[in-house]
Amino acid sequence: MTGWVAIVGGGPGDPGLITVKGLQLIRMADVIVYDRLAPKEILAEAKPGAELIYAGKERGRHYMTQDEINKLLAEKAGEGNIVVRLKGGDPFTFGRGEEECAYLIEHGIPCTVVPGVPSYVGAAAYAGIPLAGRWYASSFAVVTGTRAPGSPGRVNLYTVASAVDTVVVLMAAHRVGEVLKEIARARGPGIPAAIVVSATTADQKVYTGPASELAERYPSVESPALVIAGPQVEWREKYWLRRPAPPYY
Amino acid sequence: MTGWVAIVGGGPGDPGLITVKGLQLIRMADVIVYDRLAPKEILAEAKPGAELIYAGKERGRHYMTQDEINKLLAEKAGEGNIVVRLKGGDPFTFGRGEEECAYLIEHGIPCTVVPGVPSYVGAAAYAGIPLAGRWYASSFAVVTGTRAPGSPGRVNLYTVASAVDTVVVLMAAHRVGEVLKEIARARGPGIPAAIVVSATTADQKVYTGPASELAERYPSVESPALVIAGPQVEWREKYWLRRPAPPYY
Repeated sequence: MTGWVAIVGGGPGDPGLITVKGLQLIRMADVIVYDRLAPKEILAEAKPGAELIYAGKERGRHYMTQDEINKLLAEKAGEGNIVVRLKGGDPFTFGRGEEECAYLIEHGIPCTVVPGVPSYVGAAAYAGIPLAGRWYASSFAVVTGTRAPGSPGRVNLYTVASAVDTVVVLMAAHRVGEVLKEIARARGPGIPAAIVVSATTADQKVYTGPASELAERYPSVESPALVIAGPQVEWREKYWLRRPAPPYY
Repeated sequence: MTGWVAIVGGGPGDPGLITVKGLQLIRMADVIVYDRLAPKEILAEAKPGAELIYAGKERGRHYMTQDEINKLLAEKAGEGNIVVRLKGGDPFTFGRGEEECAYLIEHGIPCTVVPGVPSYVGAAAYAGIPLAGRWYASSFAVVTGTRAPGSPGRVNLYTVASAVDTVVVLMAAHRVGEVLKEIARARGPGIPAAIVVSATTADQKVYTGPASELAERYPSVESPALVIAGPQVEWREKYWLRRPAPPYY
């Protein structure tokens, strides 16, 4: 009997931000193949004896190639296993979920996709920078700061930044200064901007300032990092950083 | 002792798509104030005796005004309750989370925000239409099809659609034809497009076709609905609809 594969978005980093469905699948899985940016704490929820396989994936250095990962998933499911492919963020937002799923479908293996909270959505909530809403923005765009070889053609950050209210640039760590300069060119040097490093994790860092100043101060930062630019960065200072100390839970 | 408020993104519709943290908060809450598009099944997880309050919110007809909701949250927390404000999707993506949170902070009440899987991210996974990745798109934009009174200025769908690979329009149900025509004008009549109604729920419906034809067939649809346009709509036909029948779980 053939198994199947669930491609699961692990969310932005805080292990509490995986979906309930994603966690159920982690607990069911016979095999879990996980990425560098998947929240590792969740692996503790795997059942005893589950096989945990690290698939790596860092910029410019893949521990396993995409082709090897595809084959591994097919092979493990072919042996009758319930396989979870655990990714950071969301599988269909620059997550290559479609590549893995397509390969599996072509090989007759059932495949499902469980969405996850994308990194920038987590960053917005944990850094106090609303993405869109009637106070600040009626539109936002998300672009990748690192284009994979062979990517399609349309990322012109200047044009995109000019067309929308809020600009989000993912996978921007190694060239964050360059990204901010381009945003400043499109929207003026004073446009409020934030760099969020390791969003939603205990290591989260947030740097804010006018885009052009921020670009000078931070030509690059540690990975993973994303940029959010738009007037709502001011919401963070105006409200979020002034909120009463959370007793919470 | 004063209570506090957690503004929780309930996710796109499938109750399994709330985050683990969101569900924990639902189970802790003394009071839950929920919206029309919040996944109602989750309310069954509330503790016995929790007070459940419907806050409505439909286009052009609010059961409670935003101001009344703000006051209710402050009042319930002020009485010492743990209050969950449960929303559909994500609170900071056209969710007015920032308005409620700002009001609470101004009134000295602790407030936290738990992100959720946005509707369009759920729609992508459940309809089989990847948002972005090296096969199809290096950028996407999300705009609202219904601007709240007093919204900021920049939504020009023609300009946005021209600048990015993938275009997503939320809250588009009542004028989906108009939205599709504008996308066709920017990207050519043949650009593949999808309308997703009630994404990720048992009632999900997906209509696809070239944008201009789809516009003729569906001037409007039932709410909630969103539009995704871009070449990756073809991924659905090419792979997703051909996948082996899921035994799954």
